[in-house]
Amino acid sequence: MSTIPAAAPAAVMQAFNQPIAVRDYPLPRDLKPGEWLVEVELAGMCGTDVHLHRGELKIPLPVILGHETVGRVAAMGGGATQTDWLGNACRVGDRVSFTVGRTCGTCRYCRVYRLPSRCQNRKAYGVTTPCDAPPHFLGGYAKYHFLHGDTAVFRLPDDLPSETLVGAGCALVTAVHGFEKLPMMWGESVVVQGAGPVGLAAVAVAKEAGANPLIVIGGPRDRLERCKRFGADIVIDIADVPDPAARRKIVLDHTHGLGADYVVECVGIPAAVSEGWELCRDGAKYLVLGQYCDNGPTPLNPHLIVRKELTIAGSYGSQPQHWTAAIELLRTRRERYPFHELITHRFGLSQVNESLAAVARWETGKAVIVP
Amino acid sequence: MSTIPAAAPAAVMQAFNQPIAVRDYPLPRDLKPGEWLVEVELAGMCGTDVHLHRGELKIPLPVILGHETVGRVAAMGGGATQTDWLGNACRVGDRVSFTVGRTCGTCRYCRVYRLPSRCQNRKAYGVTTPCDAPPHFLGGYAKYHFLHGDTAVFRLPDDLPSETLVGAGCALVTAVHGFEKLPMMWGESVVVQGAGPVGLAAVAVAKEAGANPLIVIGGPRDRLERCKRFGADIVIDIADVPDPAARRKIVLDHTHGLGADYVVECVGIPAAVSEGWELCRDGAKYLVLGQYCDNGPTPLNPHLIVRKELTIAGSYGSQPQHWTAAIELLRTRRERYPFHELITHRFGLSQVNESLAAVARWETGKAVIVP
Amino acid sequence: MSTIPAAAPAAVMQAFNQPIAVRDYPLPRDLKPGEWLVEVELAGMCGTDVHLHRGELKIPLPVILGHETVGRVAAMGGGATQTDWLGNACRVGDRVSFTVGRTCGTCRYCRVYRLPSRCQNRKAYGVTTPCDAPPHFLGGYAKYHFLHGDTAVFRLPDDLPSETLVGAGCALVTAVHGFEKLPMMWGESVVVQGAGPVGLAAVAVAKEAGANPLIVIGGPRDRLERCKRFGADIVIDIADVPDPAARRKIVLDHTHGLGADYVVECVGIPAAVSEGWELCRDGAKYLVLGQYCDNGPTPLNPHLIVRKELTIAGSYGSQPQHWTAAIELLRTRRERYPFHELITHRFGLSQVNESLAAVARWETGKAVIVP
Amino acid sequence: MSTIPAAAPAAVMQAFNQPIAVRDYPLPRDLKPGEWLVEVELAGMCGTDVHLHRGELKIPLPVILGHETVGRVAAMGGGATQTDWLGNACRVGDRVSFTVGRTCGTCRYCRVYRLPSRCQNRKAYGVTTPCDAPPHFLGGYAKYHFLHGDTAVFRLPDDLPSETLVGAGCALVTAVHGFEKLPMMWGESVVVQGAGPVGLAAVAVAKEAGANPLIVIGGPRDRLERCKRFGADIVIDIADVPDPAARRKIVLDHTHGLGADYVVECVGIPAAVSEGWELCRDGAKYLVLGQYCDNGPTPLNPHLIVRKELTIAGSYGSQPQHWTAAIELLRTRRERYPFHELITHRFGLSQVNESLAAVARWETGKAVIVP
Repeated sequence: MSTIPAAAPAAVMQAFNQPIAVRDYPLPRDLKPGEWLVEVELAGMCGTDVHLHRGELKIPLPVILGHETVGRVAAMGGGATQTDWLGNACRVGDRVSFTVGRTCGTCRYCRVYRLPSRCQNRKAYGVTTPCDAPPHFLGGYAKYHFLHGDTAVFRLPDDLPSETLVGAGCALVTAVHGFEKLPMMWGESVVVQGAGPVGLAAVAVAKEAGANPLIVIGGPRDRLERCKRFGADIVIDIADVPDPAARRKIVLDHTHGLGADYVVECVGIPAAVSEGWELCRDGAKYLVLGQYCDNGPTPLNPHLIVRKELTIAGSYGSQPQHWTAAIELLRTRRERYPFHELITHRFGLSQVNESLAAVARWETGKAVIVP
Repeated sequence: MSTIPAAAPAAVMQAFNQPIAVRDYPLPRDLKPGEWLVEVELAGMCGTDVHLHRGELKIPLPVILGHETVGRVAAMGGGATQTDWLGNACRVGDRVSFTVGRTCGTCRYCRVYRLPSRCQNRKAYGVTTPCDAPPHFLGGYAKYHFLHGDTAVFRLPDDLPSETLVGAGCALVTAVHGFEKLPMMWGESVVVQGAGPVGLAAVAVAKEAGANPLIVIGGPRDRLERCKRFGADIVIDIADVPDPAARRKIVLDHTHGLGADYVVECVGIPAAVSEGWELCRDGAKYLVLGQYCDNGPTPLNPHLIVRKELTIAGSYGSQPQHWTAAIELLRTRRERYPFHELITHRFGLSQVNESLAAVARWETGKAVIVP
Repeated sequence: MSTIPAAAPAAVMQAFNQPIAVRDYPLPRDLKPGEWLVEVELAGMCGTDVHLHRGELKIPLPVILGHETVGRVAAMGGGATQTDWLGNACRVGDRVSFTVGRTCGTCRYCRVYRLPSRCQNRKAYGVTTPCDAPPHFLGGYAKYHFLHGDTAVFRLPDDLPSETLVGAGCALVTAVHGFEKLPMMWGESVVVQGAGPVGLAAVAVAKEAGANPLIVIGGPRDRLERCKRFGADIVIDIADVPDPAARRKIVLDHTHGLGADYVVECVGIPAAVSEGWELCRDGAKYLVLGQYCDNGPTPLNPHLIVRKELTIAGSYGSQPQHWTAAIELLRTRRERYPFHELITHRFGLSQVNESLAAVARWETGKAVIVP
Repeated sequence: MSTIPAAAPAAVMQAFNQPIAVRDYPLPRDLKPGEWLVEVELAGMCGTDVHLHRGELKIPLPVILGHETVGRVAAMGGGATQTDWLGNACRVGDRVSFTVGRTCGTCRYCRVYRLPSRCQNRKAYGVTTPCDAPPHFLGGYAKYHFLHGDTAVFRLPDDLPSETLVGAGCALVTAVHGFEKLPMMWGESVVVQGAGPVGLAAVAVAKEAGANPLIVIGGPRDRLERCKRFGADIVIDIADVPDPAARRKIVLDHTHGLGADYVVECVGIPAAVSEGWELCRDGAKYLVLGQYCDNGPTPLNPHLIVRKELTIAGSYGSQPQHWTAAIELLRTRRERYPFHELITHRFGLSQVNESLAAVARWETGKAVIVP
């Protein structure tokens, strides 16, 4: 770990739909107890970053994007040894990651309802943390990342490569949260709608939890191939089977003619929900994971909820304990779920625009910024 | 119990939207073991009967309507003493009621999924049981009602008046089923959308389960008054507060500004679901009870399921064990939930058309046919 | 609210089984943000205090007993207005109560398992908080009570008398926790073993949650009478029915000859568990609430867990959200569950020994210290 | 399928602790609809058979032991094609297995509580079905097996060898039932106490459901080796580590020093439960599977249930839907869980005594009778 410089570069989004430029900010000094400075090693690029760059969420600007970050501790307030969220001792040079959502711990959601993912004062690094005032470094696409004292930091085990964690990205903790919210039973037939990062994460969690059979509907082909490598038994390519009724028929063929026990929506397009309900057997569970962005209403028939006796649930983002589970899964099942293989593109800090373009064109498995 | 005649009258619907006429059918003889003949005492008229008469469900005709029936055993196959669904001894003259849904016990829903309300071979007396062939008497609006051997019959306790059971009608077992499907915790704030029979039944079950506060949105005024008598803490009259945003504001005022812990839809209009999701706090439960009929799709925003981390569930009709619970509730809490007060209109068998018209005009608490 | 004096009296237990004497300690000054000083109004005496005085738990001495305390805010660090655990504004003079268990918020139980009642660094005011060093005032039997910044404080609503909260005591939050851990369904038959404070609290919660019927086994008679006033349908006096088999017979008579759906142990004697399992129907739930103290092993037959397919659960103390639920229950259902009636004895600070003796002799409904 | 003879041999236990002799019984003729005659292919010997032979359960004699049976349909009442429990068409010559527990379908456990494993009129082939009267053939150790109309029969898929199903035996459906009763979450740390057939089945189910890590305590070595082959991460040989405290230390070393999230008892000795509770972290789940036989009380400390906030559950035998799940698991995961490898010994019908002796000496993986 080299000496901390006085200033360091960051890729700053000044305006929506405009090129992102690298500029220097002064690094914070005199960290208070609980505050950390992390030298960024890898910062994953999530599909959400493309949406953010397009201004589809009205976040305050300027901002340093990047909310899937691994780095090494460069400095810590409060002494040479601090503890991470799990109580592990951390020192300068240790490799860490952290939750992007900071929660207040004092609102009714944090306290009474124990639902910190819905904290009324939630802030997300790389999303809702403007960077024009110190400590500036509040997103992943920068040489350093500042962490407030309320951040859940995780020291990474030596047998968990950074690529594995960043390859899984925020999709995996999202899926972990969802399956906690609506538990699946081993042996249940599962359909995952969508083969993108959230879909692949859902495949990993569902496989680990004993889905049988595990069916994926999505595309393109290489993503479906990856789903198979992660354990999907059957994949349905929407390019090959563009008709929802034909897709449903394939699902029924593998589910006693009735539909799946458990269906997970990982598409993000509202209309997917309507197709999804049709894939459920009566009495099935339906988990909504993909509708993180607000794309407005879609025609849905609530009679189906009654007639099919569905249970439907959604979860939002993640909570720190989902990181604990995700880290343990990645560490111990790296060969079964090779998330590191997703990383197909690496860009420097000055190439954030190229990276956004590549992600927007769906060319990447996973693109990462290496500052 | 008088001698069983050779034939008896029934109100037969020959065509949709046409007057129902009384005619005689021969009574079944030589009952096989398990078959019963019941002399009808009271047959409740449900809102669904109005929909059926209008042809909104394509059921086979002719049919004897009526699926909320109490009567006295007139004859039983298999000997002088038979047992009801709970193993209670029954004899001719005993007062009984019964589930309208007959299930096969052998399909995958009955067996593997233990979801008999979704039996693939379900038949419902008074709905999907045409009456042109023997045994003819397969609906409540007749002097007698025939019961197949697969019917769940319940001998009524002496301290449970027929009026109480028929007053509660199929709405109560529907609510019992729903709250079993999506359990409510005592002390949770509950909003019931709708003040009709299902809404009132939901009020009773939610109150019994410890809802606090218990809020009802609906109308007209007399129905809301009845909801208050059954335990609602707050009622919101949609005539007084026609603006959904204003109704939402009242709910928030009683739920920490966040929304209710548990919301039950008992309206039946698809758009009610959209309003209902807005009444939920994040992390809330939403039970769909009213969408029994298929009124088609409505615009719904699935992003809310994610952002609010909702759990949504529906249930269809009821199963025999819900009758057990309902009967016990009615028997022991008759003063707390005076369902017998609902019965405001009594009609003879020849007045089924008048009764349908009165129900369609919402003039009745509960109308019953006394054959 | 009078000016805070330099010192104030406290009843200090210097040794087990020895008289407790009142002595003065200097009051803390210069409170830090989050710290509060409360002038004690009422301090409930719990049966546990008798056990503590007898040295049955090896707690550090000297200690000021008392862990069921209501008082008025005398001083607050950090400014004239602070917020309580629920975010309500608090000022000097406001009436408050607080959880006795302080948790670290950082151990694996607090964080990963979300089980703060099992915090590895838990401290309980009035139990594990020796008083020989400043801030001294860490138990209820004193003129003042100091609160650390990690205490969950609750400003009491005006319509919740202090007597109601202290009458319910730590028994009610214990019961609230237990029924959250092992949820009861409305309409289930419930047996409460024990008619002491925890048993009475279990009666209140079970009644509110719709127990039907609700049976209590215990004594003496006046306690059972109170259970009936709180909603018990049947009470079995162990003095009248000393034979467990005869008690079981009465339970079976009210539970279809099979046993209860839900049984709650609130006795504290290990052997009660064995009797309790026999009161369960097959498939029943069994909640252990009374075995807070370690009274060692008792003969239990694990074959019954298998053959009866039991689900058994226990919970330890309470968590702050259980206070939220308890306060709301007490505030809104004061007439249904008149916990304030329990307070039968009031003692001054110098009479703590008399109070302990009265509680030990089971002479009291609830004894309170009025400093 | 050869012609059915007039009589066929069966191994009949006439008295406890006496040699079992083969004798002929006349085969039933004129089967009624629903009745089947099966020609036995393989009949597994369960540890329970040893207990039954020793008279440890007071079952009626004479009896044909054997309750893990696969065979081919030799005759069916009611026509050439009948349906199995899942509705699959069956014909003479088809390979089938069946649940040993016949249930009445009409008692309160079957109906209201939906707990057929506790049917009040349950009969178990090979256990509580004396063979002195026709149809005689009511256990597996015979050339033929008669099935009453209330038996849940399963036609075996072609890709499920008989050895696999009999190798899994009744242990697997027992484990399936248990994990349904007390669901495990993927990623939980699991300890299985016991490495016998039930322990191995619990290993398979826990692995399939995502246990991580999965620890087995038991012996002897070859059974532990098989547990590892089925997916156990850590095995603790009680011969190597005879001290329970030392075993607990190993468990703690793999569970953050706190204990496992989920512990399954598959030992059958009551004292195992006491050790098991000590292996639980606070808030853990404890499943009792092994205490099928009544070995009487053991000292257990109920304070631990409270202090550790345990959830404890047991399940008894199995229900038909657990067979559905087990068959699907065996069919699709045969390489992951090679239950067929368990079959180490094959005996003819005249060697039942030798087989019982070998099982009693723990010499066998699984012994089967090939009549």
